[in-house]
Amino acid sequence: MPALLILNGPNLNLLGTRQPEVYGSTTLQDVEAMCSAHAPDCMLSFFQSNSEGALVDAIHAAKGTQDGIILNAGAYTHTSIALHDAIASIELPAIEVHLSNVHARESFRHHSYLSPVVLGSVAGFGAQSYLMALDGMKAHLASRTK
Amino acid sequence: MPALLILNGPNLNLLGTRQPEVYGSTTLQDVEAMCSAHAPDCMLSFFQSNSEGALVDAIHAAKGTQDGIILNAGAYTHTSIALHDAIASIELPAIEVHLSNVHARESFRHHSYLSPVVLGSVAGFGAQSYLMALDGMKAHLASRTK
Amino acid sequence: MPALLILNGPNLNLLGTRQPEVYGSTTLQDVEAMCSAHAPDCMLSFFQSNSEGALVDAIHAAKGTQDGIILNAGAYTHTSIALHDAIASIELPAIEVHLSNVHARESFRHHSYLSPVVLGSVAGFGAQSYLMALDGMKAHLASRTK
Amino acid sequence: MPALLILNGPNLNLLGTRQPEVYGSTTLQDVEAMCSAHAPDCMLSFFQSNSEGALVDAIHAAKGTQDGIILNAGAYTHTSIALHDAIASIELPAIEVHLSNVHARESFRHHSYLSPVVLGSVAGFGAQSYLMALDGMKAHLASRTK
Amino acid sequence: MPALLILNGPNLNLLGTRQPEVYGSTTLQDVEAMCSAHAPDCMLSFFQSNSEGALVDAIHAAKGTQDGIILNAGAYTHTSIALHDAIASIELPAIEVHLSNVHARESFRHHSYLSPVVLGSVAGFGAQSYLMALDGMKAHLASRTK
Amino acid sequence: MPALLILNGPNLNLLGTRQPEVYGSTTLQDVEAMCSAHAPDCMLSFFQSNSEGALVDAIHAAKGTQDGIILNAGAYTHTSIALHDAIASIELPAIEVHLSNVHARESFRHHSYLSPVVLGSVAGFGAQSYLMALDGMKAHLASRTK
Amino acid sequence: MPALLILNGPNLNLLGTRQPEVYGSTTLQDVEAMCSAHAPDCMLSFFQSNSEGALVDAIHAAKGTQDGIILNAGAYTHTSIALHDAIASIELPAIEVHLSNVHARESFRHHSYLSPVVLGSVAGFGAQSYLMALDGMKAHLASRTK
Amino acid sequence: MPALLILNGPNLNLLGTRQPEVYGSTTLQDVEAMCSAHAPDCMLSFFQSNSEGALVDAIHAAKGTQDGIILNAGAYTHTSIALHDAIASIELPAIEVHLSNVHARESFRHHSYLSPVVLGSVAGFGAQSYLMALDGMKAHLASRTK
Amino acid sequence: MPALLILNGPNLNLLGTRQPEVYGSTTLQDVEAMCSAHAPDCMLSFFQSNSEGALVDAIHAAKGTQDGIILNAGAYTHTSIALHDAIASIELPAIEVHLSNVHARESFRHHSYLSPVVLGSVAGFGAQSYLMALDGMKAHLASRTK
Amino acid sequence: MPALLILNGPNLNLLGTRQPEVYGSTTLQDVEAMCSAHAPDCMLSFFQSNSEGALVDAIHAAKGTQDGIILNAGAYTHTSIALHDAIASIELPAIEVHLSNVHARESFRHHSYLSPVVLGSVAGFGAQSYLMALDGMKAHLASRTK
Amino acid sequence: MPALLILNGPNLNLLGTRQPEVYGSTTLQDVEAMCSAHAPDCMLSFFQSNSEGALVDAIHAAKGTQDGIILNAGAYTHTSIALHDAIASIELPAIEVHLSNVHARESFRHHSYLSPVVLGSVAGFGAQSYLMALDGMKAHLASRTK
Amino acid sequence: MPALLILNGPNLNLLGTRQPEVYGSTTLQDVEAMCSAHAPDCMLSFFQSNSEGALVDAIHAAKGTQDGIILNAGAYTHTSIALHDAIASIELPAIEVHLSNVHARESFRHHSYLSPVVLGSVAGFGAQSYLMALDGMKAHLASRTK
Repeated sequence: MPALLILNGPNLNLLGTRQPEVYGSTTLQDVEAMCSAHAPDCMLSFFQSNSEGALVDAIHAAKGTQDGIILNAGAYTHTSIALHDAIASIELPAIEVHLSNVHARESFRHHSYLSPVVLGSVAGFGAQSYLMALDGMKAHLASRTK
Repeated sequence: MPALLILNGPNLNLLGTRQPEVYGSTTLQDVEAMCSAHAPDCMLSFFQSNSEGALVDAIHAAKGTQDGIILNAGAYTHTSIALHDAIASIELPAIEVHLSNVHARESFRHHSYLSPVVLGSVAGFGAQSYLMALDGMKAHLASRTK
Repeated sequence: MPALLILNGPNLNLLGTRQPEVYGSTTLQDVEAMCSAHAPDCMLSFFQSNSEGALVDAIHAAKGTQDGIILNAGAYTHTSIALHDAIASIELPAIEVHLSNVHARESFRHHSYLSPVVLGSVAGFGAQSYLMALDGMKAHLASRTK
Repeated sequence: MPALLILNGPNLNLLGTRQPEVYGSTTLQDVEAMCSAHAPDCMLSFFQSNSEGALVDAIHAAKGTQDGIILNAGAYTHTSIALHDAIASIELPAIEVHLSNVHARESFRHHSYLSPVVLGSVAGFGAQSYLMALDGMKAHLASRTK
Repeated sequence: MPALLILNGPNLNLLGTRQPEVYGSTTLQDVEAMCSAHAPDCMLSFFQSNSEGALVDAIHAAKGTQDGIILNAGAYTHTSIALHDAIASIELPAIEVHLSNVHARESFRHHSYLSPVVLGSVAGFGAQSYLMALDGMKAHLASRTK
Repeated sequence: MPALLILNGPNLNLLGTRQPEVYGSTTLQDVEAMCSAHAPDCMLSFFQSNSEGALVDAIHAAKGTQDGIILNAGAYTHTSIALHDAIASIELPAIEVHLSNVHARESFRHHSYLSPVVLGSVAGFGAQSYLMALDGMKAHLASRTK
Repeated sequence: MPALLILNGPNLNLLGTRQPEVYGSTTLQDVEAMCSAHAPDCMLSFFQSNSEGALVDAIHAAKGTQDGIILNAGAYTHTSIALHDAIASIELPAIEVHLSNVHARESFRHHSYLSPVVLGSVAGFGAQSYLMALDGMKAHLASRTK
Repeated sequence: MPALLILNGPNLNLLGTRQPEVYGSTTLQDVEAMCSAHAPDCMLSFFQSNSEGALVDAIHAAKGTQDGIILNAGAYTHTSIALHDAIASIELPAIEVHLSNVHARESFRHHSYLSPVVLGSVAGFGAQSYLMALDGMKAHLASRTK
Repeated sequence: MPALLILNGPNLNLLGTRQPEVYGSTTLQDVEAMCSAHAPDCMLSFFQSNSEGALVDAIHAAKGTQDGIILNAGAYTHTSIALHDAIASIELPAIEVHLSNVHARESFRHHSYLSPVVLGSVAGFGAQSYLMALDGMKAHLASRTK
Repeated sequence: MPALLILNGPNLNLLGTRQPEVYGSTTLQDVEAMCSAHAPDCMLSFFQSNSEGALVDAIHAAKGTQDGIILNAGAYTHTSIALHDAIASIELPAIEVHLSNVHARESFRHHSYLSPVVLGSVAGFGAQSYLMALDGMKAHLASRTK
Repeated sequence: MPALLILNGPNLNLLGTRQPEVYGSTTLQDVEAMCSAHAPDCMLSFFQSNSEGALVDAIHAAKGTQDGIILNAGAYTHTSIALHDAIASIELPAIEVHLSNVHARESFRHHSYLSPVVLGSVAGFGAQSYLMALDGMKAHLASRTK
Repeated sequence: MPALLILNGPNLNLLGTRQPEVYGSTTLQDVEAMCSAHAPDCMLSFFQSNSEGALVDAIHAAKGTQDGIILNAGAYTHTSIALHDAIASIELPAIEVHLSNVHARESFRHHSYLSPVVLGSVAGFGAQSYLMALDGMKAHLASRTK
């Protein structure tokens, strides 16, 4: 039973309470519950932080205790070489997730420092992005154990 | 029962026969069969072409006959404003799919003309990318009919 | 009586049926009819294609049979050196036409590969752009025969 | 009967007297006369200045007295945000006109600060550009009054 | 009692009469009256011009007659090295003022040629920007005379 | 009585003790005292941190408890999309403040990620910048309650 | 006896009939005849198309039937990632050929998407470029069979 | 006896009175007197303006009345396409002069719009630059009349 | 006896346990022990953190307690203006150290925000880089006390 | 019998002794011998230098003594305007040769200062490149003498 | 009697013999003779080399033996930081000279590494440029000895 | 006993005699003597040249006679691909040395063509940089012989 870390970065704690008429009322807790329901065959851990350093720490801690990471690094996606290096340093598959279609937003959201070190990415499907990433991770882990 | 077009662009016809020791022996026909098996509750159509114009034609033809498009435009992703305009012209949800993690490859593959006009994107999971995109499209269509 | 080719590129076949509440219900056929009515003293030919190669072929075919070309190359305006070369290869005056004010849209529409090889350009007047281009072409041909 | 301002910018006063063997002997006065002859159904006013500030003043003065502006801002097309703002500030339709095909000349003539705030543009037809712009303006005004 | 010049550049004469439903009905005269009311302990002079040269002249004239300049150069902020040099040439403190938050507008408004030669800047507070700048200037002059 | 958060970012804790012969001996505590004295009609809270994440946390906490934010994000102004997103996420007016005239310093200080999401900015007046920002915020809040 | 495909892209069909006073009267058929005469020890096939897709198709078809490709992609050299991918996908040596010295022409002709995936390139020798490329290909094939 | 126009642009009227401890006490009148003394065999005219339009007017007026122009356009050197066009429009030799070594100053002073249309340039020698330019102009005019 | 702070940034805590077959088994603790052994005549303090803010705090704390800083800021080298400002704010000599030859790696590692504010840099010698930096710091401190 | 100079630039003297397991054991002397054998109907001269100035000297010396130049300028291809000018100054045809496919290597090798002034170029065929260039030169000289 | 070095760089030895119908028949020896005739009150030395290193050597040798340098570095103007450093290292005034108006030629000739370290520059007057530079140098030396 | 070449590039011969009040009176000979004293267990050779070609020659000559190279290429660091290729061609470890902190100087000194092909770099410690580099080289050679 694979152990997976669902890691969320800055401002994602506001999900659901932030402009609910626009973003809907799904909170981060709801997203996490949807993940748990979607992947009962995985042992899921959840962590959110607004601190780049705390996210690096969490990635380090995943080494040896987790089998993969689903990562929505929020704004740090575009500015953090430290997260790039953290993912590259531990030897775990990681998937980059975004709620929105980041490539259709401001140009400073078009570049990701994470892309070169992740397995793949899913963007633009709202909370559904996480469920799709879970499926992608499970398929990847299954293919490796064959 | 939603009707979905799975559209593949240049060079994807070579899938499976091209450097099989590297890319594996999964052919485009295999991918299409995997899609059919994964989404028995959808009516899937498949089209592949190496011609930008033929792909534009196919997108136009989808209007009024399909409910959504799963599009792997291959190299045209990075060079075709015509495909951008075609997707924007018909009023159907589209999802951008890539077999490989394009953002980790040559810099000329980092920009997509399609991203601003699609619902979302899935990249890096091989044939699994298509199945994840099908799930994303189905969830999107389901949420719209609520 | 001058023979003129009215050449339209990708996605222009959707004119009038695409978001009619926005773009109006004038179809490409209507535009062509307006051209015919506006220039009864010219022999007009019409061709539209979504294929870059077919547009190059059409330009080649105009050599020796037409006296000038009115060209709305749509998205290929911004990406096609092949069309640049085709126009430069045949020795016919050409006018670049755009329905919308392309310079006020996305930055990738600000550069035209056609501009250096055409006589002039008309942009932003909707279907009227074609009629103005016809007048410009007729005046140009008239001035040459003086 | 629409009132239209034909506004010309720096160096256009030299038209006809400048290298007549190259540019022909059509003077700015001739162009203005051609405009008057071409649009007997309009009330035309003419103004030329080499001063950016005087052109801004003239645009301001058009508000409430004119129905539209035909503007050849010459070199200021490429350097003047003040003219951009002036056009945007008054609520009159404006058309950008150029005698030459500016996009085929030096690269510093490829960008126009005026394009985002005008109705459309006509370039490359010599004095004929003004007549085409007059037609475009008249068609635009007519379509608004329907 | 300090003498201060309130200098306004191109298009600011239209304030209040331009799209009043958007920008409100405060005119430049109102702004000047607000300044006078806000700084009864200063001798204020006011000048507005749409001409870059006239603004340079006004800055030159301030030398020896004024103690400071509050400058809203409008569009010339972004294009005028002549104004940069004029401010640098006279030895008076100057403050850059903008009604709108220019850094949140078009990218061509993000660079200011004036910033390197002014004391400081205030942007985004509408007419209130001028009052804040007056306070900043008075505090600056007071600190120098200590 | 409006509640306002005065938020200071990295290295601002050193104010006054850092090169006092250059920057003067005004400490951050002095600046905060000047703010309190200048705005006795406001309930001011103060927070300083060298951590980007802690600043994001503080902005989140302001939602529902404060009426506005005066923010000097120091170096993070130029590198933090996370702060941009935090400001955009809560629905409070914010003003960007800088002690120095940042636009006259190194080019990497010319761009602000905060500018697009703040009400306005004040830069270059030393500690006085905060007092001007307080006045700007109070005027803004007053105008909204009319 | 090696089988070689001589592939020509857009506008090369006009060779010889296009401005013969400039480019000479050598037609593409003449070039092909020169190739045949120059390499009687090779089995040569010839294909020209103005369509990017048709050129991709032709490259695919070469796999398993040809021993090498001599490719003059014309304008597509500079814009086609699809051709880059097609060459990279089949495992045949390819040589890039240009009639003119492309690096001495417009800057948009200085970059080639084909260069990274071909064996080498020959440019600037007119029809002679093809004969030199044939020699280069034959030498390459000979060296491999040693 | 050649007639030459010595034309000076924005802020040069301040010469000598601006920071005399730095720039010396040589005024523009002194420079003009030095020119007259240096070239008694020429008929010199002098004009200075802070207005771009007035400088364009002066260049136009030189046509037919002067034999050459010595031009220090000050800040307009770097921003004025209108002056570029004015010089190009009249058929008189012009020499670009700068008091300071502009290429060693801020990067925005490194580009000159005038350079492509002048005979040559002299920079960095203070008032002496004008005398050297006069010699250069006289030598040029002499060589033409041989 | 000089007091020196050896400061390490993000991901350096993983040294030795990360891909030991590639990077060797030297841990950060080993590096610190090597430093202590190499500089018995210095009082060394060691600190590592993955948090940018904590590194800024540590630099502040060094003021008044340390004589110099040896800093390997890892990924923050390339993204942190806050660290630049922190080093510039305290008045202590600092040396930039890198284990790897950063200029030979990805282009985003070629720029250092620290370089302008440090004494010098040593890169590419693995753990030996720290020992060389210690020697450089000792020589620098010795030369200052002469 | 044409006299041709085969000119080689920096580091080409190491050919054959440098990493022979990679580059093979063909030395520059071997290449020169291959050239002599390939073109017995030409009078070949050979020169190699690591000095830019010596290469310029050699090109100058070729004027009047040689009929053409085959030039592999090595690294100076990408950095030497002096060689560009030398080739342009003498009136001899020159061909640019590269052993490797330079356009597929580091980006700083993609630009050639020589390309605008040579007849054509051959790259990527190893020693064979020189033989192909000899053929190209001979054909060029033959065509001129017709 | 001032001692001045007239230093000429690559390809200037060809002057007069290179395309005499274009550049005239004035040789470098003629230019040097014109300099001697123009400045009989100076002790002139002349040196020309095509080698960057030899030019650096010559500049070093000028220290202590010359009073100033007139330098036409030809192509090295645009590529040589070594010459920049050499001029900056010796403490002699230097003047940059160009025969042609370099700013009106190819863009790679628009930047000069020498400009920041020379007194001034003269360009575009042919051999006359040297005479003007001699006058400038003499005036400069005279002003220093006052 | 390792044999090491200490190689110095352009202008370094002036060390000590150039502005001694700024750079001190340490000459290149002094630096070489310091190196000899610091590394009595190495056989040191010294070479300095202002010629790029001579430096390339010296690097070639080191192959087979030296065990490593300490290289201060001065200005050629930033412009010489020939030196990059020379270092890459011989199979000896090289260390890049700079007296000053080059990354804190003009932007044209921020890029090094040598960095990708050297073992590591030391910059900013004056003559001490060479001693640190010697230690780094010795440690590197020792680690290889284990």
